[in-house]
Amino acid sequence: MEDLLNSIEQKVKPLIGLGKVADYIPALANVDPNQFGIAIYSNDGQLYHAGQAYTDFSIQSISKVFSLTLAIKHYGEDMWKRVGREPSGNPFNSLVQLEYESGVPRNPFINAGALVISDMNQSRFASPHYAMREFIRRLADNSHLSSDKVVADSEYEFRARNASMAYLMKAFGNFENDVESVLHSYFDNCAMRMNCVDLAKAFSFLANKGYSQLSGEQVLSARETTQVNGLLATSGLYDEAGNFAYRVGLPGKSGVGGGIIAIVPNRFSVCVWSPELNKSGNSLAGMAALEALSESIGWSVFG
Amino acid sequence: MEDLLNSIEQKVKPLIGLGKVADYIPALANVDPNQFGIAIYSNDGQLYHAGQAYTDFSIQSISKVFSLTLAIKHYGEDMWKRVGREPSGNPFNSLVQLEYESGVPRNPFINAGALVISDMNQSRFASPHYAMREFIRRLADNSHLSSDKVVADSEYEFRARNASMAYLMKAFGNFENDVESVLHSYFDNCAMRMNCVDLAKAFSFLANKGYSQLSGEQVLSARETTQVNGLLATSGLYDEAGNFAYRVGLPGKSGVGGGIIAIVPNRFSVCVWSPELNKSGNSLAGMAALEALSESIGWSVFG
Amino acid sequence: MEDLLNSIEQKVKPLIGLGKVADYIPALANVDPNQFGIAIYSNDGQLYHAGQAYTDFSIQSISKVFSLTLAIKHYGEDMWKRVGREPSGNPFNSLVQLEYESGVPRNPFINAGALVISDMNQSRFASPHYAMREFIRRLADNSHLSSDKVVADSEYEFRARNASMAYLMKAFGNFENDVESVLHSYFDNCAMRMNCVDLAKAFSFLANKGYSQLSGEQVLSARETTQVNGLLATSGLYDEAGNFAYRVGLPGKSGVGGGIIAIVPNRFSVCVWSPELNKSGNSLAGMAALEALSESIGWSVFG
Amino acid sequence: MEDLLNSIEQKVKPLIGLGKVADYIPALANVDPNQFGIAIYSNDGQLYHAGQAYTDFSIQSISKVFSLTLAIKHYGEDMWKRVGREPSGNPFNSLVQLEYESGVPRNPFINAGALVISDMNQSRFASPHYAMREFIRRLADNSHLSSDKVVADSEYEFRARNASMAYLMKAFGNFENDVESVLHSYFDNCAMRMNCVDLAKAFSFLANKGYSQLSGEQVLSARETTQVNGLLATSGLYDEAGNFAYRVGLPGKSGVGGGIIAIVPNRFSVCVWSPELNKSGNSLAGMAALEALSESIGWSVFG
Repeated sequence: MEDLLNSIEQKVKPLIGLGKVADYIPALANVDPNQFGIAIYSNDGQLYHAGQAYTDFSIQSISKVFSLTLAIKHYGEDMWKRVGREPSGNPFNSLVQLEYESGVPRNPFINAGALVISDMNQSRFASPHYAMREFIRRLADNSHLSSDKVVADSEYEFRARNASMAYLMKAFGNFENDVESVLHSYFDNCAMRMNCVDLAKAFSFLANKGYSQLSGEQVLSARETTQVNGLLATSGLYDEAGNFAYRVGLPGKSGVGGGIIAIVPNRFSVCVWSPELNKSGNSLAGMAALEALSESIGWSVFG
Repeated sequence: MEDLLNSIEQKVKPLIGLGKVADYIPALANVDPNQFGIAIYSNDGQLYHAGQAYTDFSIQSISKVFSLTLAIKHYGEDMWKRVGREPSGNPFNSLVQLEYESGVPRNPFINAGALVISDMNQSRFASPHYAMREFIRRLADNSHLSSDKVVADSEYEFRARNASMAYLMKAFGNFENDVESVLHSYFDNCAMRMNCVDLAKAFSFLANKGYSQLSGEQVLSARETTQVNGLLATSGLYDEAGNFAYRVGLPGKSGVGGGIIAIVPNRFSVCVWSPELNKSGNSLAGMAALEALSESIGWSVFG
Repeated sequence: MEDLLNSIEQKVKPLIGLGKVADYIPALANVDPNQFGIAIYSNDGQLYHAGQAYTDFSIQSISKVFSLTLAIKHYGEDMWKRVGREPSGNPFNSLVQLEYESGVPRNPFINAGALVISDMNQSRFASPHYAMREFIRRLADNSHLSSDKVVADSEYEFRARNASMAYLMKAFGNFENDVESVLHSYFDNCAMRMNCVDLAKAFSFLANKGYSQLSGEQVLSARETTQVNGLLATSGLYDEAGNFAYRVGLPGKSGVGGGIIAIVPNRFSVCVWSPELNKSGNSLAGMAALEALSESIGWSVFG
Repeated sequence: MEDLLNSIEQKVKPLIGLGKVADYIPALANVDPNQFGIAIYSNDGQLYHAGQAYTDFSIQSISKVFSLTLAIKHYGEDMWKRVGREPSGNPFNSLVQLEYESGVPRNPFINAGALVISDMNQSRFASPHYAMREFIRRLADNSHLSSDKVVADSEYEFRARNASMAYLMKAFGNFENDVESVLHSYFDNCAMRMNCVDLAKAFSFLANKGYSQLSGEQVLSARETTQVNGLLATSGLYDEAGNFAYRVGLPGKSGVGGGIIAIVPNRFSVCVWSPELNKSGNSLAGMAALEALSESIGWSVFG
């Protein structure tokens, strides 16, 4: 397996230079683009990796999967009154759909949806980011994980569009807590620094019927796990979910830090990372690596 | 298996009465709502069925999968210049997105996308509907299949919205043939009458790496087959693709005639049918039957 | 007055070259851009003109004012069930608003609105274009006016977007007649050839409480006349109605043939023409001429 | 004139009961609906009034005309880079158009446009609301005018939708100051309490080529005055500007407090007030009164 990962690294590294590092905040714009890492964690506890699999990066929207998981644990089916389960068909941060659909975001992985989920978690926890950080540390079996304060502060400074969405949902009665407080929690979660190995481990429960061997806890039920994977497969890759299903065929979630996690149900959890993004905001080399892997091993859940 | 199918039939039949038969054309509005059928065809050639699995119905949008398959055979990757692969996030017949995205429909399963696919097939075949009908007959191993002229004529009479979409794409330069001719082919395909057994057989190639044991042909390559299944999983259920992934977890396609086909990759093809539709235009009892099946057998591709 | 018109001609002719002749059909694209004409007709029967005021051009959307006038005569207030009276806030040929507002166009001067008005007139007249042509000939006191068949045929050939709008309205139940027939009438009206003098005369009734001295008929009541002028002031200049109110301050209507008519209530009717259009589709030199006139004479109705 | 005003009061008072007092904040919802007042101020200094013309009410969006006037005085034509001059074609507080048009609001009278104007004034004045209040006191010749703190605080509490718009503009780079501070100024201006006589006097400069006889100042130039009136005529009545042009035919501006001001250029300024609103958010009895006045006196600028 590691031979395969190394050969894939060789194959996709020439793509670096064709994408564009996220630059909407300075703290992300300064990342060295010439990096690539991949890690695979199997249900029987094996770890495979190649490239800079131990280099930390900003997990950004990948954090939305952790937030959703926490919310499902506390709210169950009730939560779907406040957020939908359908692909958005619009860029991840559009307000148009949100207004036409009366402040109920399409799914938990567009920004508006993740803000509602953060609002739910804000109502449940005294210290929402602390609860989230401890949850992630347990899942990744790494007690050193933490949020990058410089990135979180910079995200907050440039919060205008997210603030706009949160206030719009508040106008529709779909936001319970103070907007500024929820934004702080949300950005703190996005600014978590983790590496490919951490993330492959942390999401292993999604490949393992909801059970995390590392933390020894049943994070979600088996049924909830297939449901989360179903949502990831239809809405996890921003405006490129269909393309990801077509090319890779796995449930997955990307972040603008360049990370992508993917789940091979009942077998593996994967994390790939390379900072340059394609036009849809997903890691360019990361997508290529997952497509190559999927073709080599026949991983697609669709055939 | 047939015991399970019978028990599911008993479980979902009480739901009949809660939905609404499609009534946008008289020919469909008159269907007896009190019907339910299911058929499963396995890769090793076994057929299981329950209820009215041999009663013909109007396949409607399920025909879009046949059309897409034909187009892929003739155009390959080139076709994706004219139609996208992303979920639409809008009702299946909306023009808004089509206008904002310059006449390129989001995917092959919304009406606009299926019209573009029909336009492609119109450019390839002297008698497009005849080519389609023969293709379907071979796949279903049933030489008696044909289109219901009364339904096709009625669809044509009430063609206004589809005509509007076709003309809008023509205005954007994404429609090659005469609009009226393509509409006739399109409606003839939608009006094909088939039963659950026919459809389970006809789509068995999608569960079998593209190979149809019944016609003895490699309909699509194995890779193309996973790709089509990926598109079905993200866009096959109108505005309910995410919910279908969440509840059922299989690639699928529905039609307003009340049929739904679903694929269990490498194992089975399924067709369920009951005429009453839910608010998203998908068979209400059919959805419930597939969810029950998925839960019973653990069929979801997502875990 | 003619001195003023001549000085304005000198002032705006240098602008020719900065705009762009309409080129969506070949028959319009071939017009010599280097032309300018203006005519003013006063309520006391005086005619003033400068430049190529006797050169015929394609009146295009200016015909929508004739169509609306005919419809008001036959339908009165009832007609406002099928078309609104509000500015559209969108390009003149957008389908988005039409879909969100259930097939009721915003006003009679966007294309969708004019198509509904044409549909109304189609229901009233055995030969709708003939009725329109005779009406225009009477108002302009010119029995030689006619439609340019080459232009009308070319418009019909490139009818896709207008056909799309008409079919969308039909889908919403807001279109009574056969789409193709109404499109023919509509394009025949748009293709009328008239010159600045014809148009200034023909619209003199709008400056004269609805009475046409040339045809000797009370075309509209005084109240209806102020209402039509009110609609022209808010919706007559495509997506530039506000700018026209700001810069010129008169009820007006433009066409992509480069003509603009304007009304100085109780005093004058004006027609200016120059083929090159600005980005909003209105005659660039024509707008400048009307602004200069308005500033010189203090014509704005707003102060 | 006062006889006419009294007869109009008798005519429209029976309409009270058919509309609905604004209830989006408690402070407005508690207003007694059974009130009506009208005042007319002529260029020669005559004041006519009927009904409760001396009863104070919340001017709400009518304040947008004062804000625009202040901004024009300080920015001139430059300001039109940040806000458009076209009717919106959408409800006054929609975000859809704002997003499609990259954060540049359609005109100064929709909420987004007024927020941008407030942001401009915020950049110019040390105490923006104080500057505005003094400006209004001078124009109305009433040194007792002030803002209702209870209303302003309530507006701020329910600021979510306005905050959403302001943050969206900030995301597009079209908002200079702190969002919360500008919202406070904006709501303070909206919460000014004035009566019909105050408002008729305060806007007399718009009927008088920009000159206020009461304050003795040339508030705007004659040209700027026609321009502001042109904008009021095309965009002053929310989503009912076309209908207002059709029925009344005057530049005007309404507020959800039930006030409407209208300008008869070179002759009169008018203010009418009645708290119940029609479906477009404009005073129901107020609209009817202005229509009756316009028909009686032939006031429409359009004929």
